[in-house]
Amino acid sequence: MPRYRLDIEYDGSAFAGWQRQAGQRSVQEAIEDAIKAFSGDEVSIRGAGRTDAGVHASGQVAHVDLARDWPADRVRDALNAHLGLANDAVAILAARKVADEFDARFSAMARHYLYRIINRRARLALEAKRAWWVPKRLDAAAMHEAAQHLVGRHDFTTFRSAHCQANSPLRTLDRLDVTRDGDVIEIRASARSFLHNQVRSMTGTLKRVGEGGWTPPDVKEALEAADRSRCGPVAPPDGLYLVKVDYPAEN
Amino acid sequence: MPRYRLDIEYDGSAFAGWQRQAGQRSVQEAIEDAIKAFSGDEVSIRGAGRTDAGVHASGQVAHVDLARDWPADRVRDALNAHLGLANDAVAILAARKVADEFDARFSAMARHYLYRIINRRARLALEAKRAWWVPKRLDAAAMHEAAQHLVGRHDFTTFRSAHCQANSPLRTLDRLDVTRDGDVIEIRASARSFLHNQVRSMTGTLKRVGEGGWTPPDVKEALEAADRSRCGPVAPPDGLYLVKVDYPAEN
Repeated sequence: MPRYRLDIEYDGSAFAGWQRQAGQRSVQEAIEDAIKAFSGDEVSIRGAGRTDAGVHASGQVAHVDLARDWPADRVRDALNAHLGLANDAVAILAARKVADEFDARFSAMARHYLYRIINRRARLALEAKRAWWVPKRLDAAAMHEAAQHLVGRHDFTTFRSAHCQANSPLRTLDRLDVTRDGDVIEIRASARSFLHNQVRSMTGTLKRVGEGGWTPPDVKEALEAADRSRCGPVAPPDGLYLVKVDYPAEN
Repeated sequence: MPRYRLDIEYDGSAFAGWQRQAGQRSVQEAIEDAIKAFSGDEVSIRGAGRTDAGVHASGQVAHVDLARDWPADRVRDALNAHLGLANDAVAILAARKVADEFDARFSAMARHYLYRIINRRARLALEAKRAWWVPKRLDAAAMHEAAQHLVGRHDFTTFRSAHCQANSPLRTLDRLDVTRDGDVIEIRASARSFLHNQVRSMTGTLKRVGEGGWTPPDVKEALEAADRSRCGPVAPPDGLYLVKVDYPAEN
């Protein structure tokens, strides 16, 4: 059975998250339904990141094995047609045939997330559910300084959801950059893998620094405490995007 | 009665257009309702651009006279609070007191529109209702070349809706630029004023050039014919944004 890699965009506000769950519409189910409508195959697809309800993606990756050897562009176009008929807020940006060893989740070498904050007095209209609205002025330079204490290999227990199923709280954060352009603050986070709610937990904590409630060294202390109760409020899902997943060059 | 200028953002997909009309939710009505809830005043506000159903704004401008002399920031914050309670996809970006002579519509010296096309094979998910999806590859350079035939003072009958109520089809188009950045094609149009559906009519015609169906000189001929039947298909409202309105410096 040929294996296909799918590159996927979705509006997370329309879904109960990536992962299939009874009684609620998930991105996984929407794509699996489209695959069945197109090919007749009843499949289970695996994604690189199990994004939560409300979290978006512009570069999610999944893999699927199909019974027939379809041209990859045909798979992309047919899935998009069926996703359109079902009115699901998902797009298949690309499909390509990959080696049987390719696994969207386990072959991933790095995941890249973007968190968008709109920092202005006025509520959001065009960006509602697409960004976190923070009316109080944030100091993005202080947020960036604080973020550098989190980069590197650490025990991220402080920034991990109580529901996280990972065996270890150790992760290596390769990048955590905070930049401002006008009213928009962007936080870019990269790592081989993240703990559950890690990006939103770090973002909520950095926002505290931006407001002046915490200093950058407070974030270092919170990290070193390895204590979930030391985390700032978890940022809402609206601003979070899975933007890219890296794989070894041959994929 | 003090006069206030309001700078306004809205998601046009949630509304039947700017202008109040019986039985359908308009942006004007949403804001007038918020003004009444805040101040008790029953007012009629006037906007710089009467955008159609589905057309967005990041820089619409309106004016309103209020009975009491409120601080301008208080007006902005109170209107945003009431728009939020009513769950209307409108934000008041700024409010300021202006001279009694200021008129959002008649004092405007220039209006600036942006039309966004996403030019890729895959349907839209994150940008659904926020851009025009064109799957066939467009030649943006040819579109820009064709657009330059429309710049200047012309009879724009070809690019004017049959429902246009303007007395004259003569307009001076100051700018019509087409640029591409990856999959995104942006068309930027500036003029003192536009005819009804003018930007969408010009965009639909430029798309024909981008596809190779028309050449740039065909657009010049269509303009010179001053014949509505020579217009390409009108582009959908989803991609159109009123981004800025210029006024004399004192406002």
